[in-house]
Amino acid sequence: MSDRIYNFSSGPAVLPEPVLRRAQGALWDLNGTGIGAMEHSHRSPAFTAVIERAEASLRSLAGIPDDYRVLFLTGGASTQFFMVPMNLLGDGRAADYVNTGVWSKKAIKEARRFGPVHVAASSEDEDFSYIPERVHLSEGPAYLHITSNNTIYGTEFTREPELPATVPLICDASSDILSRPIDVSRYGLIYAGAQKNLGPAGVTVVIIRDDLVEAGRDDLPTMLQYRTHADAGSRFNTPPTFAVYVLAEVLAWIEDQGGLTAMAEHNQAKAQLIYDALDRSELFRTMARPDSRSRMNICFRTPSPELDVRFAAEAEQRGLSGLKGHRSVGGMRASIYNAFPPAGCRALVDFMDEFERAHG
Amino acid sequence: MSDRIYNFSSGPAVLPEPVLRRAQGALWDLNGTGIGAMEHSHRSPAFTAVIERAEASLRSLAGIPDDYRVLFLTGGASTQFFMVPMNLLGDGRAADYVNTGVWSKKAIKEARRFGPVHVAASSEDEDFSYIPERVHLSEGPAYLHITSNNTIYGTEFTREPELPATVPLICDASSDILSRPIDVSRYGLIYAGAQKNLGPAGVTVVIIRDDLVEAGRDDLPTMLQYRTHADAGSRFNTPPTFAVYVLAEVLAWIEDQGGLTAMAEHNQAKAQLIYDALDRSELFRTMARPDSRSRMNICFRTPSPELDVRFAAEAEQRGLSGLKGHRSVGGMRASIYNAFPPAGCRALVDFMDEFERAHG
Repeated sequence: MSDRIYNFSSGPAVLPEPVLRRAQGALWDLNGTGIGAMEHSHRSPAFTAVIERAEASLRSLAGIPDDYRVLFLTGGASTQFFMVPMNLLGDGRAADYVNTGVWSKKAIKEARRFGPVHVAASSEDEDFSYIPERVHLSEGPAYLHITSNNTIYGTEFTREPELPATVPLICDASSDILSRPIDVSRYGLIYAGAQKNLGPAGVTVVIIRDDLVEAGRDDLPTMLQYRTHADAGSRFNTPPTFAVYVLAEVLAWIEDQGGLTAMAEHNQAKAQLIYDALDRSELFRTMARPDSRSRMNICFRTPSPELDVRFAAEAEQRGLSGLKGHRSVGGMRASIYNAFPPAGCRALVDFMDEFERAHG
Repeated sequence: MSDRIYNFSSGPAVLPEPVLRRAQGALWDLNGTGIGAMEHSHRSPAFTAVIERAEASLRSLAGIPDDYRVLFLTGGASTQFFMVPMNLLGDGRAADYVNTGVWSKKAIKEARRFGPVHVAASSEDEDFSYIPERVHLSEGPAYLHITSNNTIYGTEFTREPELPATVPLICDASSDILSRPIDVSRYGLIYAGAQKNLGPAGVTVVIIRDDLVEAGRDDLPTMLQYRTHADAGSRFNTPPTFAVYVLAEVLAWIEDQGGLTAMAEHNQAKAQLIYDALDRSELFRTMARPDSRSRMNICFRTPSPELDVRFAAEAEQRGLSGLKGHRSVGGMRASIYNAFPPAGCRALVDFMDEFERAHG
């Protein structure tokens, strides 16, 4: 680790070092094939093994039932913001959304192009500092959409909203997927850009129940229909092969760590270290309500924007990189996804203590 | 090269070995930043330098005029098949297409969803074995679309169709972009999946003239409007950062080779080696007309499908990989993009000679 620093980036984000070491070898020669992982045809036996292993690991880790498809797409969550309503709205029904911040709002904006949107709950009244307790559904909505973790405000759902069985729950899980055990059967569709908890930017995971694949409109551009990718095993066109390779390696690493239960303990312990420091501090404070705190993105600040800037700059000099908060809210943000090491959290806490002694 | 074999894959395809060596180092630590190339925020100074370098190299190599934007997108050519007509049709005008094979047909299929399509020329009458000499435009089409190189049939345009200045030429250049000098000013929009001549799968290059950015519909999903990506410098959402990094390195490698004039000579010489062998052979024949032969994908066959299978299998055993033709046409295909080494072409010719002596 000597030549690498602590990378608190909110995504793309730090990856497990054993994965990077394996990827270095695979770039030159994937599994003794004499061809590198970026250079294999997406129809080759070598890449077929990679994508099948990625799907098998994801199914096993998350306990994905047989009536769900796993798709490896591109375009990130921003593409799912419109693909979901484009496929599932248009018959006059409303789509319900929980508004927990910037990313929810972007999803809502795209949905409005395809049908009526009902905001079933919102925390905008208090600067998105909490996760709403209850949702108020419209009558017979096509689905309810949530953003399970909110990177900019540092809040996270601790459990799914209670819904009638007829309303599919759709979740943008980009920033906390596979960070803890999940009951996939409670969802109709889960999507996630890989670049936080799963791998590199450039591949998007979609877990979708068969009935929603079927329900999707069939008059859309071929690439925008979920069925296209479900029918073709995510190889209707050339998938982002190297990103899928790295994803497969990250999933294997999560398995090696003990799966999602172990990952949840590990993530909880890391977050607790930093929240404990914030709770005992008289200089720093966190904005998220205690019952809504994210284990992935810990947002905090000092009483002054100038001191915030100084903190982030001094931290950077000490090899604690990427702590500047999102431009829309300021302050600081420590993003500590699955692959972020506990030692980095301890180093941050040590520096917070030191900074507080100097400036408190 | 000892541990690597000759990879004739049609894409993803072989990459320059110096690029792979640099990428191995960058995976761990990009330019001494202490953070790997897959792990840097897409808003970081380090990645900003990468994407700016990629654009500058592309502009310099291809001589892209100032009134064109360079976009780094995802979704491959298959996504451009619908994004082009989705943005540029819909006002009742027709779109004109030259049909030179499977990929043209896919582009035509998607365009029909958005407006009338006129096939301005086609070589379907002779199994797509040639590039049509003349195009017959409809009245005032929104654009004319061509596929500059046809991977499945092994044909390639040698020059652009003559068009009135009012008709933008749109080109799927996925399989021959940057393989020779190009006069970008003759085009309205050029797109290319990177995984053949430019880099890895997962990033799509779009070169688009400003007036076509402006002309695009503004009622589309945000991610599907060219202006979104033009306005945001390809960072409206998280781009495929590592794929862009590798692309930048491939472009630097092309510069090191002497740019597009040198690349054209190099590619011509490689193709000539194989076509000369085919022309003197009594066993093998190539399907493309001499005036339409692709320098990128050389399609050939023996008189019997059984012998074709045997050829590809024996070649594979000798480290000549990926020579099986596309499933829709059979036979063999040698894909020899920019990064494919001349020694691999010589090895193929040697094996063809040997095979002919045994089976001719």
